[in-house]
Amino acid sequence: MHNHVPAPRLADARPVVPATGALTPLPLDDVRLTGGFWAERQRINGEVSIDHCDHWEQRVGWIDNFRAAVDGTVAETRTGREFSDSDVYKLIEAMAWEVGRTGDERLDARIHELAALIGEAQEADGYLNTRFGRPGQEPRYSDLAWGHELYCYGHLIQAAVARLRTGHDDELVAIARRAADHVCDVFGVGGIESVCGHPVVEPALVELYRATGERRYLDQATLFVDRRGHGTLPDIEFGRAYYQDDVPIRDAEVLRGHSVRALYLAAGAIDVAVETQDDVLLDAVEHQYRTTLARRTYLTGGMGSHHQDEAFGDDYELPPDRAYCETCAGVASIMVAWRLMLATGDLSYGDVVERTLFNVVAASPSADGRAFFYTNPLHKRVPGATADPDTVSPRALAQLRAPWFEVSCCPTNVARTLASLGGYLATTSDNGLQLHHYAQCEISTTLGDGRQVGLEVRTRYPEDGHVVLVVTQTADTPWELALRIPAWATGATVDGAPATDVARLWRVFEVGEEIHVELPVAPRLTAADTRVDAVRGTVAVERGPLVLCAESVDLPDDLQVDEVLIDTTVPLQDHGHGARASGWVVEHDDTSWPYGPPVSLPRSRQVDLVLIPYREWANRGPSTMRVWIPTAG
Amino acid sequence: MHNHVPAPRLADARPVVPATGALTPLPLDDVRLTGGFWAERQRINGEVSIDHCDHWEQRVGWIDNFRAAVDGTVAETRTGREFSDSDVYKLIEAMAWEVGRTGDERLDARIHELAALIGEAQEADGYLNTRFGRPGQEPRYSDLAWGHELYCYGHLIQAAVARLRTGHDDELVAIARRAADHVCDVFGVGGIESVCGHPVVEPALVELYRATGERRYLDQATLFVDRRGHGTLPDIEFGRAYYQDDVPIRDAEVLRGHSVRALYLAAGAIDVAVETQDDVLLDAVEHQYRTTLARRTYLTGGMGSHHQDEAFGDDYELPPDRAYCETCAGVASIMVAWRLMLATGDLSYGDVVERTLFNVVAASPSADGRAFFYTNPLHKRVPGATADPDTVSPRALAQLRAPWFEVSCCPTNVARTLASLGGYLATTSDNGLQLHHYAQCEISTTLGDGRQVGLEVRTRYPEDGHVVLVVTQTADTPWELALRIPAWATGATVDGAPATDVARLWRVFEVGEEIHVELPVAPRLTAADTRVDAVRGTVAVERGPLVLCAESVDLPDDLQVDEVLIDTTVPLQDHGHGARASGWVVEHDDTSWPYGPPVSLPRSRQVDLVLIPYREWANRGPSTMRVWIPTAG
Repeated sequence: MHNHVPAPRLADARPVVPATGALTPLPLDDVRLTGGFWAERQRINGEVSIDHCDHWEQRVGWIDNFRAAVDGTVAETRTGREFSDSDVYKLIEAMAWEVGRTGDERLDARIHELAALIGEAQEADGYLNTRFGRPGQEPRYSDLAWGHELYCYGHLIQAAVARLRTGHDDELVAIARRAADHVCDVFGVGGIESVCGHPVVEPALVELYRATGERRYLDQATLFVDRRGHGTLPDIEFGRAYYQDDVPIRDAEVLRGHSVRALYLAAGAIDVAVETQDDVLLDAVEHQYRTTLARRTYLTGGMGSHHQDEAFGDDYELPPDRAYCETCAGVASIMVAWRLMLATGDLSYGDVVERTLFNVVAASPSADGRAFFYTNPLHKRVPGATADPDTVSPRALAQLRAPWFEVSCCPTNVARTLASLGGYLATTSDNGLQLHHYAQCEISTTLGDGRQVGLEVRTRYPEDGHVVLVVTQTADTPWELALRIPAWATGATVDGAPATDVARLWRVFEVGEEIHVELPVAPRLTAADTRVDAVRGTVAVERGPLVLCAESVDLPDDLQVDEVLIDTTVPLQDHGHGARASGWVVEHDDTSWPYGPPVSLPRSRQVDLVLIPYREWANRGPSTMRVWIPTAG
Repeated sequence: MHNHVPAPRLADARPVVPATGALTPLPLDDVRLTGGFWAERQRINGEVSIDHCDHWEQRVGWIDNFRAAVDGTVAETRTGREFSDSDVYKLIEAMAWEVGRTGDERLDARIHELAALIGEAQEADGYLNTRFGRPGQEPRYSDLAWGHELYCYGHLIQAAVARLRTGHDDELVAIARRAADHVCDVFGVGGIESVCGHPVVEPALVELYRATGERRYLDQATLFVDRRGHGTLPDIEFGRAYYQDDVPIRDAEVLRGHSVRALYLAAGAIDVAVETQDDVLLDAVEHQYRTTLARRTYLTGGMGSHHQDEAFGDDYELPPDRAYCETCAGVASIMVAWRLMLATGDLSYGDVVERTLFNVVAASPSADGRAFFYTNPLHKRVPGATADPDTVSPRALAQLRAPWFEVSCCPTNVARTLASLGGYLATTSDNGLQLHHYAQCEISTTLGDGRQVGLEVRTRYPEDGHVVLVVTQTADTPWELALRIPAWATGATVDGAPATDVARLWRVFEVGEEIHVELPVAPRLTAADTRVDAVRGTVAVERGPLVLCAESVDLPDDLQVDEVLIDTTVPLQDHGHGARASGWVVEHDDTSWPYGPPVSLPRSRQVDLVLIPYREWANRGPSTMRVWIPTAG
């Protein structure tokens, strides 16, 4: 059992708090998941995954690195990659949101314990990193391209912002402010004129500015955003595009290079643009993100086509088997889409947030919250190996979810996202409330004009598409309830009336009043733009916001998924929260030259094709899997 | 002008000389290319490319590394990757075959000069490597997984074998024998029980055994082949399959891991099997290679689907855009196919040799022989950059052919292959001559039973399919002339009679007699097995042994190749040595979510689609290119 401290009123307890913008996010205290899929994932995250990450970070020595730094032994004993400090900070950020959400005393105490250790390791001038700068180590900032020092500060600062916004102006915040001041001293005007090989300090500094009012943090973030893209960092095998140092962000056409780097930078640039009222910059990043959604994004919302450099491919280069779709890129894409929605008021960004949450973020953790996917391919040709729950895994091996990775950015990224998920469900404007996601929840908040409104969301969505909204607080004057209608939801209705894009209800609501939303989640066939070469001649099946997949464990006779075609002339049937289709078995020769004159496939026997939500694949042991299924005939 | 030394009768001047086997290769002296495509490539190789490689190996310091080793300064000054010595050896091997072919005095003197330097750098016990073992360097054999010391010996030994077989039992041979003896001393029974992370010493040691009769070299190669596959080397991110240390070669089903490593090992295992009459081993490797041809080989004959680890993908994972198809893997595949043909007498291996020569090996060098492709993708989505002729390139950047690479294994591999190419044209058996390739050449050789036979091959193949064979020497008793008929050559005739697989003529031939071979090289459509997901819904066009491609420089109105479909209902036309087809332009929206309900493409305007030999792509500046073209309708 967890003990609970009284929760303070947390006016700013939300992941992103822009000074301006079309929409205002809700503090975690104003919106609570009360049941259903996301509440359950959030519960497991809080009860299992956060402790799991803490356990592994102790076990692999990443927390002890700080102790060794204090003791002067770190040059000899340090473990982990150059960025391992950042995972400790991401863990603290997850704990901070969880404490904010639940008031968990034990986690709160653990944050203080970790902060005390980290504080001891911080040097007098604010420098803080266990990998550089001490006797026997390479000098500070001697390898900006790969050293990740500013990246680590970024995650430290984000943890501190989470702490501040959940009502704790404590030693972690002081540490982060000292680090941020140090960054401004060293990398400000007249200082080192460079940037970090891995962006993330940019959004972090803007968020710290928002949380503290300290303008120099915003100025420093602006400097970092504008410095990048001018060949500041060294050229490397993958080219400077790898760390977005090839083209200034104001001039780029599309996201490129390392996906997580590109998306974190985009998030930071949006933050800078919003706080400095730089519409040109905002438009540039929005254009790049929209182009990326149109040409470089997988059906799941996943991003990144290359294993070699964890990078975006060229336009329409989206191979499902070699999809990298790093879990962290999913988290980062949500950061970008959410920020663009707040800035522009375009509720359709909620579609990509929802798609990415259900099909990337939710796909990463195992059902028990103790193992994670690092990459999220859409096609598995050969059954993977079951990961040993007691072993650290290389990040992208051909295996199933693993308990921990040598590069273990993803588990803590999932943890901090799930702990703060309530903050992404709804927003307010001057005179309205916008509901972005149909999760079972209770909302009680204040509109921009000061009126108190409340809503209860009752639904089993996306199991089915019935959503009942019950007004729980209202005013005696009209206000607007805006509901995102997903683009896929052809035939959606609100109180019986057809609805597309955004359903806007403007009236005097009454307490107890119900609004009925129907979102047709029946399974549907989806095809890709024909320029997505890798999936030509295939279809996927989607069900509501869920991408489905075929998994070999559902096929008879030890068939593998690559031996089956889908018959698109037979209607799909709803099947649990998945679907059922008709398939044909392909029979082929595996032993001769596979190229020759075009021929028709021989007709073969029929099989049932069960399709399950993609996020659930590999939960029943090793299997082959595919999202895009070749069509028969 | 080159001066020429009188060419000795070079009875063993051929790349591979098995003691037993179905077929016997011809010495270079018995077969000479006299004109046409390959003679021209061989001429440019001899006159330009070999000197080009020598120039670059001096310029980047890889030859000077040996001088620095002698001078004791190598720990401070060494340049290049850990395997750079091997490229010096491959250069010498190319020179050795070229001297054997032409008697070039200048190249012969250069070999002596380089050998003298290398001999000075060799240590008293035979150890030879500029990267390890001297003061300030890591110890010998301290990193077998990545150190490449045995790999370097392998290429040294292959150079020495080329020298021996072309009549020069000189200091290079002595150096290689000392190195080989050292390897046997250190890695023999009771020595270090391990293998090199990169195979190649295996075939080299067997070849040195063949050339010298020294049995311990064969025994050592056998040890190396049998040791691998038992987890001898460390596990790594890519798994031990990367260096074929996952499964013993006798037990494997298919080639896997790093393509060049897998193929060099297969070549060595065949050599061991042939010399030790180990049919079980031979059958195992033949099965693996056949499975690889059926499931893991590109239409070009190229192998390797992954950039990250330069490795084979899973079965049917053959993305054209991310095809790695390293040039060296093409060379290595030819080594394997040639050895299997010699061992088994199955002339159909000539099909894959021919395919790989025309579409991988010949694709690598530029027309002028001063730049090379390292990777050979079958689809280029974005025009590459023109490589600076004065700059060393990372190996697999998105650019055109480059003059030299940081990892520069490919240029010298092409050079040694082209210089010894004559050796791959024909073979003999006891009472017959087998012609594998229809290149313009003169053959004068001795059958196994001692009879002298001769043949002149007159043809412009593959420009057209007419081949005239003129008997130039014969016996007054019958002998067999066997002619490989490529599998694609439907309708082929020999002297007017239909021919498939192998045309066998058994008779008393007369001098001056002509045999007329007709190989229908008209352009044809080729489709892939439907399990090659990445090219579903596309066709390629082949013309004789040539894979063709569409290149944007041949399209009107700045169209890129991804904007065009091929209309397979319109017959292909012959067009120079390529083809002409009918295409349709695709017009699409680039700005919105690319997934939705299946729809028919809007009909659009027609364009001419010119198809050129794949090997010639990117010779006219930056372009987009594709081999597999989506079909219209």
